[in-house]
Amino acid sequence: MQEFRKDPITGRWVIISTERARRPQAFATEPARAAAAPSPFVPGQEAQAGPQLLAYHHGENGAWSLRVVPNRYPALRVEGVIEHQGEGMYDRMSGIGAHEVIIETPDPDVDLADLPEARIADLFWAFRDRVNDLKRDFRLRYMVMFKNHGESAGATIRHSHSQLIALPVVPHFTEEELTGSLRYFDYRQRCIYCDMLKQEIQTRSRIVWSNDSFVAFTPYASRFPFETWIVPRRHMSHFETVTDAEVRQLATTMKQVLQRLDATLERPAYNFVIHTAPAQDGPIEHYHWHIEVIPRVVRVAGFEWSTGIYINPTAPEEAAGFLRECEIAGKP
Amino acid sequence: MQEFRKDPITGRWVIISTERARRPQAFATEPARAAAAPSPFVPGQEAQAGPQLLAYHHGENGAWSLRVVPNRYPALRVEGVIEHQGEGMYDRMSGIGAHEVIIETPDPDVDLADLPEARIADLFWAFRDRVNDLKRDFRLRYMVMFKNHGESAGATIRHSHSQLIALPVVPHFTEEELTGSLRYFDYRQRCIYCDMLKQEIQTRSRIVWSNDSFVAFTPYASRFPFETWIVPRRHMSHFETVTDAEVRQLATTMKQVLQRLDATLERPAYNFVIHTAPAQDGPIEHYHWHIEVIPRVVRVAGFEWSTGIYINPTAPEEAAGFLRECEIAGKP
Repeated sequence: MQEFRKDPITGRWVIISTERARRPQAFATEPARAAAAPSPFVPGQEAQAGPQLLAYHHGENGAWSLRVVPNRYPALRVEGVIEHQGEGMYDRMSGIGAHEVIIETPDPDVDLADLPEARIADLFWAFRDRVNDLKRDFRLRYMVMFKNHGESAGATIRHSHSQLIALPVVPHFTEEELTGSLRYFDYRQRCIYCDMLKQEIQTRSRIVWSNDSFVAFTPYASRFPFETWIVPRRHMSHFETVTDAEVRQLATTMKQVLQRLDATLERPAYNFVIHTAPAQDGPIEHYHWHIEVIPRVVRVAGFEWSTGIYINPTAPEEAAGFLRECEIAGKP
Repeated sequence: MQEFRKDPITGRWVIISTERARRPQAFATEPARAAAAPSPFVPGQEAQAGPQLLAYHHGENGAWSLRVVPNRYPALRVEGVIEHQGEGMYDRMSGIGAHEVIIETPDPDVDLADLPEARIADLFWAFRDRVNDLKRDFRLRYMVMFKNHGESAGATIRHSHSQLIALPVVPHFTEEELTGSLRYFDYRQRCIYCDMLKQEIQTRSRIVWSNDSFVAFTPYASRFPFETWIVPRRHMSHFETVTDAEVRQLATTMKQVLQRLDATLERPAYNFVIHTAPAQDGPIEHYHWHIEVIPRVVRVAGFEWSTGIYINPTAPEEAAGFLRECEIAGKP
């Protein structure tokens, strides 16, 4: 199969070219885990990890089970004022923002996929708590919540953690999702993500897993093999408006997706990113928060990053089939 | 230093955060060369490499020195007709296009940077010849000319080669460059790239190398450490309109840039991509073809690919300083 598919939200093309899947190295996954340097995040090292921004204590004898600390090498800092300046024809702005690390477990050797669902739920609570705190600073217009798991996904520390970067600008790709979904809404008065969910549930071929609150599926215009989106059934533009019951169902869904990726692709490196609406905006009818999970099984090369067109060697229908049918430990 | 810089063409933000450069692994370059499987491109194997689309014979006794063949695992094929179809709310189009491989040398062990300038010039002749042939097919609207060097840059074959993908659509990122440069032109009646060249030549701090026809510099809003652009001094929207004299100067400039990256970063993996105007358009006043060279010394992770905002740990002024001052073999 060789075809172009259009991402209905951004309008970008993807090439589904399954001929390339024959290349033997296409799915040779690299070891996911970064080299085992001593973890800076273990209990006893709290002072080195920097000032604690948040902690949950579900460990034995009330020990911490999750902590949030500032990134030691922050890309941005909260101190200072936002200044715009010109340099001839160029423009720059001071690097205001926040960069935090969510340490998901005190155990340096366990992966998020293997944590109990209640601890995975804690990660989403932590994201919600931190976003609600950070958005009180009106300069911070967008919160990027993400996880890099494994060296080839960009993780430099092996101890399982996620990150939050708060930005004084709305990212370019988010603007594209907002503009694209607004274009659809203007024409149809319906949310494009809600419509997509409806079609996916009806078609079934790309569904990986679902429960009462979330649907996990491989998107029609998947850029990467086994790319999986987790979309809430209820229309919400902002991640931080999830209910308690929904967070529990999200944890179940995330565990299912990660376990299925682990089983199908031999524990690949992966990234996930929460796509949500700008922090300072009220609820938006045309945008719908969701999570995009990308196992890193192919390399992004010159063609992809210069064109924005991805060549995907695995049809999403086929990927969803593998993920649905794989054997995972524990009951579904 | 922690600041946002705006790419003047696309309007995208980049974060220059030099604090992150302290991370020891930031510049641990991986070995550039893909594993040494027997090369399918060596003399004697021509039949396996597929039908020859073009060859130059500057070898001993008239042996071939450069060959162009179809990609063995093409992402797209030239046969068939372009059909647009709907699938509920989704859209797809048949995978029409071309995917060719330029074998830059018969020697499986030599890198492009180490070839004589005349052989590097041949690569650009080959791109020009192939584009001029392919554009006679009016369905092919855009030609992506690029090189992946080294495994972490996406090369799956060690034998030095480049690629050409001809597309029936103009890529999203190219559209953004076209739209952004048109916005600038509409306001000022000047080409944004010509203005950029002028400012770079005046500022000097980001210049890596220049000759009569080309300027190599690290762009103000560099997304990656040591990202280097090669821009022709003469305004041309289409790569294939280069003159013979310019191709020779381009080969010199490319060799200089690659040798300097090799000397500064210990022979890194890299990509380069020729950014040019859509194949079926006439000359455009607001667009200016150029080459973007990206050494792969940092990993692109969840944050970058979901936001479009890159975090660059090396200020471009610093990178240009290293590249200007490094020692390279042979005379400049």
